[in-house]
Amino acid sequence: MAQTATSPARERIRGTVPKLAESADTLIYGEIWERPHLSKRDRSLIVCGALMAMGRYEQLRGHLDRALTNGCTKDEIAELITHLAFYSGWPTAMTAASLAKEVFDAR
Amino acid sequence: MAQTATSPARERIRGTVPKLAESADTLIYGEIWERPHLSKRDRSLIVCGALMAMGRYEQLRGHLDRALTNGCTKDEIAELITHLAFYSGWPTAMTAASLAKEVFDAR
Amino acid sequence: MAQTATSPARERIRGTVPKLAESADTLIYGEIWERPHLSKRDRSLIVCGALMAMGRYEQLRGHLDRALTNGCTKDEIAELITHLAFYSGWPTAMTAASLAKEVFDAR
Amino acid sequence: MAQTATSPARERIRGTVPKLAESADTLIYGEIWERPHLSKRDRSLIVCGALMAMGRYEQLRGHLDRALTNGCTKDEIAELITHLAFYSGWPTAMTAASLAKEVFDAR
Amino acid sequence: MAQTATSPARERIRGTVPKLAESADTLIYGEIWERPHLSKRDRSLIVCGALMAMGRYEQLRGHLDRALTNGCTKDEIAELITHLAFYSGWPTAMTAASLAKEVFDAR
Amino acid sequence: MAQTATSPARERIRGTVPKLAESADTLIYGEIWERPHLSKRDRSLIVCGALMAMGRYEQLRGHLDRALTNGCTKDEIAELITHLAFYSGWPTAMTAASLAKEVFDAR
Repeated sequence: MAQTATSPARERIRGTVPKLAESADTLIYGEIWERPHLSKRDRSLIVCGALMAMGRYEQLRGHLDRALTNGCTKDEIAELITHLAFYSGWPTAMTAASLAKEVFDAR
Repeated sequence: MAQTATSPARERIRGTVPKLAESADTLIYGEIWERPHLSKRDRSLIVCGALMAMGRYEQLRGHLDRALTNGCTKDEIAELITHLAFYSGWPTAMTAASLAKEVFDAR
Repeated sequence: MAQTATSPARERIRGTVPKLAESADTLIYGEIWERPHLSKRDRSLIVCGALMAMGRYEQLRGHLDRALTNGCTKDEIAELITHLAFYSGWPTAMTAASLAKEVFDAR
Repeated sequence: MAQTATSPARERIRGTVPKLAESADTLIYGEIWERPHLSKRDRSLIVCGALMAMGRYEQLRGHLDRALTNGCTKDEIAELITHLAFYSGWPTAMTAASLAKEVFDAR
Repeated sequence: MAQTATSPARERIRGTVPKLAESADTLIYGEIWERPHLSKRDRSLIVCGALMAMGRYEQLRGHLDRALTNGCTKDEIAELITHLAFYSGWPTAMTAASLAKEVFDAR
Repeated sequence: MAQTATSPARERIRGTVPKLAESADTLIYGEIWERPHLSKRDRSLIVCGALMAMGRYEQLRGHLDRALTNGCTKDEIAELITHLAFYSGWPTAMTAASLAKEVFDAR
């Protein structure tokens, strides 16, 4: 079953950049995330790691929450952050850990 | 006619880094932005795109507003964000779109 | 008229990542670059600026050449590099200028 | 069983930065990669994704090869690249795909 | 004498990522910062510059304060920001200067 | 005494981007590097660290060589790379160490 193809952030900007929002609906969430070649759990690990490594913290929080929904455990997410600290640097890991704590505490 | 060679952000840090503020006044805004080789409208498109691509969101808001002043339309800015989403990634576009919405709504 | 929807780099990796190559064909070049909201000349300026700012030099060379085809002048590209040096830093401008020199010399 | 705690690249720079090389041996490969909280296959997916997203191509090639050794399939790696294209941008995916093709062809 | 091996940010995330926090205690602050090959003042200059250049602003504030403790003068930090503006771009310098002003004002 | 205000890389692109080359001559090397607020040795440490952290490897090689000329020792540069590995990630340190080895061997 497909994930909900929308989010509050996407709805907020839909009127400003309609083509961008539509591509997220139909292509990224409607098609890419649904492909069978990787599980949603694997995709969540990969996306959270990339967002942390690039310092895209505004999107990381929502994807950390989605990762839990997609079957990642809190221990796995903590380990992802710890592992990548050596590859993208401690600062990215500290901010990611702070966001993870907030997401975990809210569940 | 030259753009106003100052901004609240620059005035705020002038006492801390005077040479940096002076170079912004005389060189970047006093000279570079005024060169005839590209229009201010083109320079605004380029700078907004680069700030979005690099994730420099603190400066992007002010430059989105300046872009409207320099003759970019809201549709052109929305298209810039949509186009670059494929080159710098969706997360940068989502944050840029959110800032653009705020700037557009305030006009 | 649409630009050629393919390139040597894309053909090279088509067998490895077919969905990625197909999306470039049909979506990025088949649809996004063809939208009327910005001219191809404007899109080239924006993409070259973002690639330089992000340090994506492997793609910058081809896009500098495409920019000339899309109607940017050599003077405009040189000015783009000079302007963005202050926003993405001198190192990105030096490498971009070196690539631009090669592309200009080959025309 | 631990992975080989060394590599040609690490041996090459050991005399120049001995503490850096030693930390890679004992901490990153000797300890972090061996922790049970994530499989080596998962860690390879995460590291390859982060290296691609950050544009750290010099290290990506070796880690793509290691990913195959750690049990990732070529289809999974291709899907990782395709998925992340939307998050870190097409340019990072094109270069990663080119490196993946080279690694796959050499096996 | 070693610096305090802890900080509020690290304590906050210790329960979430214990191995990450422990490595910061024992390795980064317990060992790396204490090595004799560079003074703490030099290390502070280098770390503040790298954090500014990478846009890791959440960690930059604390390191600017630590730099003053480690013997950097306010003039040296202002000069670091001014110098690196040309290498990492004006936007990183503007945000760093704003943080430096806050840290300086609080002393 | 001022450093040589030119370099082979700068001469190579002078005809393509004359204003960029001139600003490097008169402003960056003619003025910024000559300011008394930080020594050239300190500026070299800071610039090499920032270039490594940003992955600007094409400029890093020349600045590592300049750092030795400006009075940094090989041990200090090795320590800079080792220290920053924890802040900008292992991949940036591995490439920087490889370049440092080449520069050191050539002296």
